Amino acid sequence: MNLIQEIDTPAIIVDLNIVKENINTYQKYCDGIGIKLRPHIKTHKIPALAKLQIRAGAVGVTAQKISEAEAIISEGGIDDILITYNIIGKKKLTALRNLSKKVKVSVVADSSFCIKGLSKTFEKAKEALPVLVECDTGANRCGVTNPQEACELAELINISPGLIFKGLMTYPPISQAQKINSFLSEAKKLIEEKNIAVNTVSIGGSPDMWKVQDIPIATEYRIGTYIFNDRSLVEKEICLDDKVALTVLATVVSTPTKNRAIIDAGSKVLTSDLFGMNDYGSVINFPELRITQLTEEHGTIVSEQNTNLKIGQKIRIIPNHACVVTNMLDEVNLIIEEKKLKKEKVIARGKVW
Amino acid sequence: MNLIQEIDTPAIIVDLNIVKENINTYQKYCDGIGIKLRPHIKTHKIPALAKLQIRAGAVGVTAQKISEAEAIISEGGIDDILITYNIIGKKKLTALRNLSKKVKVSVVADSSFCIKGLSKTFEKAKEALPVLVECDTGANRCGVTNPQEACELAELINISPGLIFKGLMTYPPISQAQKINSFLSEAKKLIEEKNIAVNTVSIGGSPDMWKVQDIPIATEYRIGTYIFNDRSLVEKEICLDDKVALTVLATVVSTPTKNRAIIDAGSKVLTSDLFGMNDYGSVINFPELRITQLTEEHGTIVSEQNTNLKIGQKIRIIPNHACVVTNMLDEVNLIIEEKKLKKEKVIARGKVW
Repeated sequence: MNLIQEIDTPAIIVDLNIVKENINTYQKYCDGIGIKLRPHIKTHKIPALAKLQIRAGAVGVTAQKISEAEAIISEGGIDDILITYNIIGKKKLTALRNLSKKVKVSVVADSSFCIKGLSKTFEKAKEALPVLVECDTGANRCGVTNPQEACELAELINISPGLIFKGLMTYPPISQAQKINSFLSEAKKLIEEKNIAVNTVSIGGSPDMWKVQDIPIATEYRIGTYIFNDRSLVEKEICLDDKVALTVLATVVSTPTKNRAIIDAGSKVLTSDLFGMNDYGSVINFPELRITQLTEEHGTIVSEQNTNLKIGQKIRIIPNHACVVTNMLDEVNLIIEEKKLKKEKVIARGKVW
Repeated sequence: MNLIQEIDTPAIIVDLNIVKENINTYQKYCDGIGIKLRPHIKTHKIPALAKLQIRAGAVGVTAQKISEAEAIISEGGIDDILITYNIIGKKKLTALRNLSKKVKVSVVADSSFCIKGLSKTFEKAKEALPVLVECDTGANRCGVTNPQEACELAELINISPGLIFKGLMTYPPISQAQKINSFLSEAKKLIEEKNIAVNTVSIGGSPDMWKVQDIPIATEYRIGTYIFNDRSLVEKEICLDDKVALTVLATVVSTPTKNRAIIDAGSKVLTSDLFGMNDYGSVINFPELRITQLTEEHGTIVSEQNTNLKIGQKIRIIPNHACVVTNMLDEVNLIIEEKKLKKEKVIARGKVW
């Protein structure tokens, strides 16, 4: 704790022991139910942590964007990456082709437009690009909206030069297990009837991370937040407080009234993500304190009673959403052991391209 | 427009002509009512834009954090900076002292704790550090909560080695003009009765930028968003759509249904800031489209009718809050004239220290 108190604020603190525990616990869970784990690096954006996930048994990693994938493989040690995004436009397609020369890369697609762009880019490639069809099983984001459409795109991929159909992919919520099972089973059946193999069925999401066995058709699980955990997962009782590896260290800079204190972490650190909750994080060891408002560089802490906070005092906050907090700063403070700290660059920070 | 269409997405576009017009219009307004303008660089974090503000007539700039101030002066050309933040802790105080050797720097304080730290740091300095007392006139953030306390801190600054009392500072909302006038007038009177000069009364904020004359006691105005404007100011009718200089360019990556399209800008570009509004930005030229949901790298656009968007199509979005969007990416695309574009680094991005 003394080591942490010496870090200047605002700062992101990552406890490496908890990180390792989270990685191992979940890898064991996946191994136990016989599903492959493909962690999403959007949460940490740090190559060293991705490599810990691989070493623990992950089959590869997931990235959301091309530039994020480029950054995460930059140090070596990662050779299998799935980009769960429709890659559109010449520059990004060229970047994808270049990436595929360095590591084993696969992508998703949910339209013939996207598939045609991929095929044109890879038609002369030595190895075909594996493509999964993204299915919308309830998230109302990307993805084909019915099994028939999934089958049509699988057929298109199958006949497209430079591409190989790899399987189906969906994004949470998997809480609607029945819908997901029936959508994906139906799509798989239709595709197999066309004599096309469905090798991978990739699902994911932290909120339902302990219910993966409810989707027996799945072969692969993508998950990001589990490495750090956050307030959203604590509130949903997905994890306990002591399994939260990422916290924000902040300093009290003002105590204008007895029941209000101001800290030096605002929305430019904690972000405005609420995830349907009240408040912008929870203060460790001070359950009675509430972070009720953020402006860019100030966080407002209130208490019904005296906050008992003093100017200069440092506090630790569990942020609402870990995946967006790492993206705000250039580095995190990795606590390696009680007396050892290492600053680690968030190499894929801001890589939204 | 063709030039913009060639920029890869997601990207921040800044129209330099509108920037200059916004700077000049507001400088003229301040000159007209006889108030000094001290723009807040937290909005753009780009030295070149700060220098445009200075050249137009600003007396100096405002920064929120030490590291932000260090970054904004790094290219030279800025020699007067007010940091509107309580500087707490040895490392930051040392950085402040170093900064004061390079440029004219002033700060605020709202506690004796903060003042003592400043005094200890500057007691042997060649020139005294100017300090303003921050007053809470209704924002419920930092600041002393009554005029008597402001006077006590002014007296403390006045007798503290290395410091010189400069005046009073408050943060919006100035919509409560009467409260602000009476608080600041009373504080000024009390301080002057102690034979201490109140040279500066610094107020600010974009939402009330055209009502500055309602606070006659103010001598200086701090404002950030006006250089770009954003959806929050358009909605409040502070500016018109055609005075918005900063937009986000995004590409449609999926059209899963007729009335839903997905773009490649999510909360890691547009941020989750809502400012009490519905939706996450407005789509230029498509008033019928709504950005109803953001995940990290996806924006969901819906329409009651057909969205009429096509995959690969680029759209421009006015973000809810410009000041947080520039902080998400490493560079902006500055449109200098119809056929000329310059990438400009957001040098103070992520400088929350």
